Amino acid sequence: HIGQTIIVYRLPWTWKCSKLLMKFIHAGLNTIAMILAIVSMVAVFDYHNARSITNMYSLHSWIGLTAVIFYSLQLFLGFAIFLLPFAPVPLRAALMPIHVYSGLLIFVTVIATALMGITEKLLFALNSTVYSTSPPEAIFVNCLGLLIVIFGALILWMASRPHWKRPPEENAKVQRPNGGAPEGMEAESTMTDGSNADKSDVGFNSEAARKRNFKLDEAGQRSTM
Amino acid sequence: HIGQTIIVYRLPWTWKCSKLLMKFIHAGLNTIAMILAIVSMVAVFDYHNARSITNMYSLHSWIGLTAVIFYSLQLFLGFAIFLLPFAPVPLRAALMPIHVYSGLLIFVTVIATALMGITEKLLFALNSTVYSTSPPEAIFVNCLGLLIVIFGALILWMASRPHWKRPPEENAKVQRPNGGAPEGMEAESTMTDGSNADKSDVGFNSEAARKRNFKLDEAGQRSTM
Repeated sequence: HIGQTIIVYRLPWTWKCSKLLMKFIHAGLNTIAMILAIVSMVAVFDYHNARSITNMYSLHSWIGLTAVIFYSLQLFLGFAIFLLPFAPVPLRAALMPIHVYSGLLIFVTVIATALMGITEKLLFALNSTVYSTSPPEAIFVNCLGLLIVIFGALILWMASRPHWKRPPEENAKVQRPNGGAPEGMEAESTMTDGSNADKSDVGFNSEAARKRNFKLDEAGQRSTM
Repeated sequence: HIGQTIIVYRLPWTWKCSKLLMKFIHAGLNTIAMILAIVSMVAVFDYHNARSITNMYSLHSWIGLTAVIFYSLQLFLGFAIFLLPFAPVPLRAALMPIHVYSGLLIFVTVIATALMGITEKLLFALNSTVYSTSPPEAIFVNCLGLLIVIFGALILWMASRPHWKRPPEENAKVQRPNGGAPEGMEAESTMTDGSNADKSDVGFNSEAARKRNFKLDEAGQRSTM
């Protein structure tokens, strides 16, 4: 399911796995989800055609199809840029924030589409007169809709917590051409410097800190290799 | 509108305004949106009662009412903690990520509720037989739904770009008790240190940098004063 694939990097017990293995799991789960999406789309069209129901007239179908199209695009570009070894690092770094944003946006859109589908289905199956008497099946399906919203909220919470980011790999140090120490090493010595141990708490008071934070944020939003 | 209130800190021409003025604008716009939400809820219940339509049976109404309740909670807590001068800075810093997350979550939920409402209204007004022939009004309302999704996507993009964050105020330096230079100053001298000018680009290769980045991220997600 698309929800699980989003948080696969956020599970602490996976932080010991290699980055490449995690990328394969992320790509594999998304491929399975894509196959399931295609199967279910074929089922919908077959069902509509067998019952002579018009295709693609509702807002649910418009937004749902848009989401599936963007999802396949996301999967293809993710595969080509982040899994295959051809894309250069600056391109990966530039596209990673867009990949993350569009993945989350597709996830949210899919949830909205599911909620519209539930609303439609209840009105088709029960019609508004029966639905408005709140029969048990209506209550049950409404609760299902609420649970989908809560599920989405939990996934978004996990995916947006900075301290649940997968830590970078220890052996992935970039060799610097000028032989200087990597930024992290200096940062560590600065951070553990006795009297100023807690100074990061006031780090938001300076333009320089903001710029640095932004740069780290952009470059390090996800490790791109 | 709730969408505009989310991005009010992201408009570069407002970065010259004082932080307090911006907070008043953010709180004021949200208060207006809350009043409009209450007026529209009263209108819905009045309309239902006048026409003898049952209240609160649909998934649209359940999720919509939940969103309005959380929105009023968000507004009240935001006012009490971030606008009134009583809450201590650590509490503000701890609650700010939750305030941001729940604000965005409420925004997304409201959009999903609107889409469910559109789906419902089309099926009530046209019924599925007419709706499936795609009359002009159905196309028009479907396009409205698509525009709402695009609007939401744009707001989420603006609200999640780290470089569109409001810069901290120049005159808001925190006096450090040990008399040391504020973090930002040291960070700046580190950042502009000749040979390593671009080292922040590899900053994600160290656990220490990640931790520091996280601390800045959490504490500085928004300036809390």
